[in-house]
Amino acid sequence: MTLGTIVTSLAVGALTGLVAYGPAPAQQVNRDTALIFEGKLPPDYRDWRLISVAHEEGNLNDLRAVLGNDLAIETFREGKLSFPDGAIIARLAWDFVSSEENDKAFGRSQSFVAGSAKEGVQFMVKDSGKYASTNGWGFAQFNDGKPVDEAVLKGCSPCHEPAKARDFVFTHYAR
Amino acid sequence: MTLGTIVTSLAVGALTGLVAYGPAPAQQVNRDTALIFEGKLPPDYRDWRLISVAHEEGNLNDLRAVLGNDLAIETFREGKLSFPDGAIIARLAWDFVSSEENDKAFGRSQSFVAGSAKEGVQFMVKDSGKYASTNGWGFAQFNDGKPVDEAVLKGCSPCHEPAKARDFVFTHYAR
Repeated sequence: MTLGTIVTSLAVGALTGLVAYGPAPAQQVNRDTALIFEGKLPPDYRDWRLISVAHEEGNLNDLRAVLGNDLAIETFREGKLSFPDGAIIARLAWDFVSSEENDKAFGRSQSFVAGSAKEGVQFMVKDSGKYASTNGWGFAQFNDGKPVDEAVLKGCSPCHEPAKARDFVFTHYAR
Repeated sequence: MTLGTIVTSLAVGALTGLVAYGPAPAQQVNRDTALIFEGKLPPDYRDWRLISVAHEEGNLNDLRAVLGNDLAIETFREGKLSFPDGAIIARLAWDFVSSEENDKAFGRSQSFVAGSAKEGVQFMVKDSGKYASTNGWGFAQFNDGKPVDEAVLKGCSPCHEPAKARDFVFTHYAR
């Protein structure tokens, strides 16, 4: 390796992000996709960026956050209606809990915050080849870090059918 | 610069994250703190990691997400009760909107999602010197990207007093 090669590598690396600490984006996508397929939680999903938030009443009674890996976030931000292979969307949920402390500060009962984690962590992984039979998306759920039985996930894809016009993704990016 | 120097720089850079694309973490903290102080929105706050989510009823009627820069996230994750200078916490909020599309998929009326952005974006910036008179925190709010009048922010610090045991931060990290 010559001095010139090293300087060029450094420059190209800085431009493409390949010299970043930790795995580079492309490696991360492949790693996380593979991990979920193997029934393992991606170690960094809690670091992913926010797509949006929601509240479900009824039996769910939760506050939820939908996060995306880099490919998913970029797709949302560019307003594209179809996600590339490697895009992953995660749904986290917590108990919907009234906050006495916040209510006191506001001077009225109005504040609901995230309590304990519930309903596991769910993922949608885009791989148009591997998951062709479920509209290109693989579905996974981890309860306490462990994958749930595949039978539990059979309802995911049919339930997402109504969002076909947006590549079967219900959540809109919160701007 | 010798070959050895370059290789060493590269190695040190890779270890410390200084060779990452975009500004390195320490530079980012200084830049974002300075920008907010100058009345400018940090360009990347929407990329910050999620601290927690909440729902406020009443006049606010919102869904909100609380994000943190790297220093803030690390402090929460380590369970520390005091934030270092440079920590920044952001509050984003959106209209609390009933989702007809989601309700149809769930088969009942239960789903509320983030609509249009509202109430601006609020920041708490820790600088124990500069903001000594307000318990070490500076407060800022941007409506449509523009800073609100300082008079609007006078109530922030007194309102955060009840959370004194957690360095005046109400939000708990959602695990």
